[in-house]
Amino acid sequence: MSEVYANRRNRLRDRCSASGSATALISRPVNVRYLAGAAPRGAVLLLGREEDLLLSPGPPDPQPGADRLDEALRVQTLPGRTGGPNATGGDAADLAADQGVDSLAVEEHHLTVSRHRALRSVAPRLRLDDVGGIVEQLRLVKDEEEISLLRVGAEIADQALGELLESILVGRTERHLALELERRLVDHGADGPAFTTSVATGPHSGRRGHRPTDRRVEEGDFLTVCLGAAYHGYRCEIGRTFVIGTSPADWQIELYDLVFAAQRAGREALAPGVACRDVDRVARQVIDSGGHGDALPQMTGHGVGLEIEEDPQLAPTAMGKLDACVPVTVEPGVHLPGRGGVRIDDTLVVRPEADGGPELLTITTKELLAL
Amino acid sequence: MSEVYANRRNRLRDRCSASGSATALISRPVNVRYLAGAAPRGAVLLLGREEDLLLSPGPPDPQPGADRLDEALRVQTLPGRTGGPNATGGDAADLAADQGVDSLAVEEHHLTVSRHRALRSVAPRLRLDDVGGIVEQLRLVKDEEEISLLRVGAEIADQALGELLESILVGRTERHLALELERRLVDHGADGPAFTTSVATGPHSGRRGHRPTDRRVEEGDFLTVCLGAAYHGYRCEIGRTFVIGTSPADWQIELYDLVFAAQRAGREALAPGVACRDVDRVARQVIDSGGHGDALPQMTGHGVGLEIEEDPQLAPTAMGKLDACVPVTVEPGVHLPGRGGVRIDDTLVVRPEADGGPELLTITTKELLAL
Repeated sequence: MSEVYANRRNRLRDRCSASGSATALISRPVNVRYLAGAAPRGAVLLLGREEDLLLSPGPPDPQPGADRLDEALRVQTLPGRTGGPNATGGDAADLAADQGVDSLAVEEHHLTVSRHRALRSVAPRLRLDDVGGIVEQLRLVKDEEEISLLRVGAEIADQALGELLESILVGRTERHLALELERRLVDHGADGPAFTTSVATGPHSGRRGHRPTDRRVEEGDFLTVCLGAAYHGYRCEIGRTFVIGTSPADWQIELYDLVFAAQRAGREALAPGVACRDVDRVARQVIDSGGHGDALPQMTGHGVGLEIEEDPQLAPTAMGKLDACVPVTVEPGVHLPGRGGVRIDDTLVVRPEADGGPELLTITTKELLAL
Repeated sequence: MSEVYANRRNRLRDRCSASGSATALISRPVNVRYLAGAAPRGAVLLLGREEDLLLSPGPPDPQPGADRLDEALRVQTLPGRTGGPNATGGDAADLAADQGVDSLAVEEHHLTVSRHRALRSVAPRLRLDDVGGIVEQLRLVKDEEEISLLRVGAEIADQALGELLESILVGRTERHLALELERRLVDHGADGPAFTTSVATGPHSGRRGHRPTDRRVEEGDFLTVCLGAAYHGYRCEIGRTFVIGTSPADWQIELYDLVFAAQRAGREALAPGVACRDVDRVARQVIDSGGHGDALPQMTGHGVGLEIEEDPQLAPTAMGKLDACVPVTVEPGVHLPGRGGVRIDDTLVVRPEADGGPELLTITTKELLAL
């Protein structure tokens, strides 16, 4: 495993050198983790010309399910420092200056103004550049190891959801159903939920990111559930909408069919080389044609990985094209205020047609189930 | 309620004016919430000379248990912006510049270098100052309304812990016990856990912030549990150590008595006007005298409120004195590698002796229970 991280750091080193910085200071925890295998609290990664250093304010404390810290990496614990994250930034600048380095690229989109100022004052001759979102860009295309972690996470989410569907739902609150789902995720081996589990009943159904309330499931409700497992740090997402009772109303069937058609169109559009905005467009057009274009959120999908929402965005304003081995969600939804709505959400991996096209990770049925 | 937030903003306005800035841009979500009653995702608060504006990238979406948004506050939704947090900062600078304001104080300890640069480019003539930790300082002393929310949170945590103690523990994993505690917190009305619930068995016991693993509770174990409830945004903390089985070993009784004595010394030292480092010192001296000074963490307590770890710190290097109505934890602990240890953790409110001295919020017994 250790080699994986060293390779990632070498790719980063190449990119930095190409843009004129021999050294970089990576402070965003998720990026530190990507490059080092783990990110002890407050740790920063100093990418040197030859040697890399993980500067940590305390002893390494890997999170459950996290890979072990890359063994090839020299870990420097800074004992007796209570300053937390701020301390290590200054030490990194110190070290870089000591090594005769004249410029250091930092993550300006993560580093605060205060920390940036502290770096400057510790090493006033060091030129501070912006490394930009280079690490986020490296993280976009996943290797097969990363994809297999997402696959396991998706299986866990499918299992948790499947078990919930077998239990009695009427009369239970959104909050309890969400907690039960999260317990089941952990039962099946997840590190924890990938994000706050969303359970939305009746008038709440179909809302993106709905926070569970004390509303109870009632007969005739739409029920939208959106959950995901974090597995060894990798986060996937699945969303489904069900109907409670024996038979759905006509408006429910109509709305469901519309969102289903939009989601299928989005899924089928996924291929290497396709513009992200085009995937969004085909899904959006279906909803538009059904007269619910206004009810659509700004985004119909997004990348997943170490973060539950990372690049690329599938949105009208998105730039860039899809690549093979990029995992994304496709999750159009319509919410009608006061009535409720439908969301259908899958995690898929973009694959070339020769490899069978998009790989669906979340395989729970998308038929409209009456529970 | 609305008046509370307006008063807080007026106090902030006074402080800002005193330091030469007529306007401020508050971007740290927890500070926005403190001043506005809620913090929709990505929202920033522009504190003007006369009028305050909450700039939000989307419709307000209060979290469960959050107070409603201050009605006196003008909320400006910026529709169609997908830029998230970054968008609103630029808009704030725009608005400030439009109003003829010449300087804007920002939270340099929260604002990233990128966002700071974006503010500059939107309004190049606007002077950007640092508001520093002024809002964090305002948040230090709590009003009785805030304390009563902490009190309810502490009751909930006590209940959840009490129920767990009545169940069978041997053979269950740390992870499951932690999940059950979190479910019980929500059952009793918490928004959710105040922080990741820590359940530590056997050799893990006594470790601060231990993340639950799949280790099962065994006869003879020490069991350390640390949990808290978030209630209307306010977060409290309780930690207890138990022994599993009929009778504790001698070393367990000795260690427990030592940590108990240290924790009591710390609790009894809490009073308005006492230096924070002195509270830490009295607790630390007890542990030292028992020969376990090396096993002590860097901090024996900290403030709580909208964040689970906020000012003041009770640590050897801490500056400042305690005030009345400041809630803090007192939580010394000793962990012996390979054997385990003890932590005892309470949330208390500093009160003058005339009012009966420190108010204990977490009232679960601190006798060494054998479960």
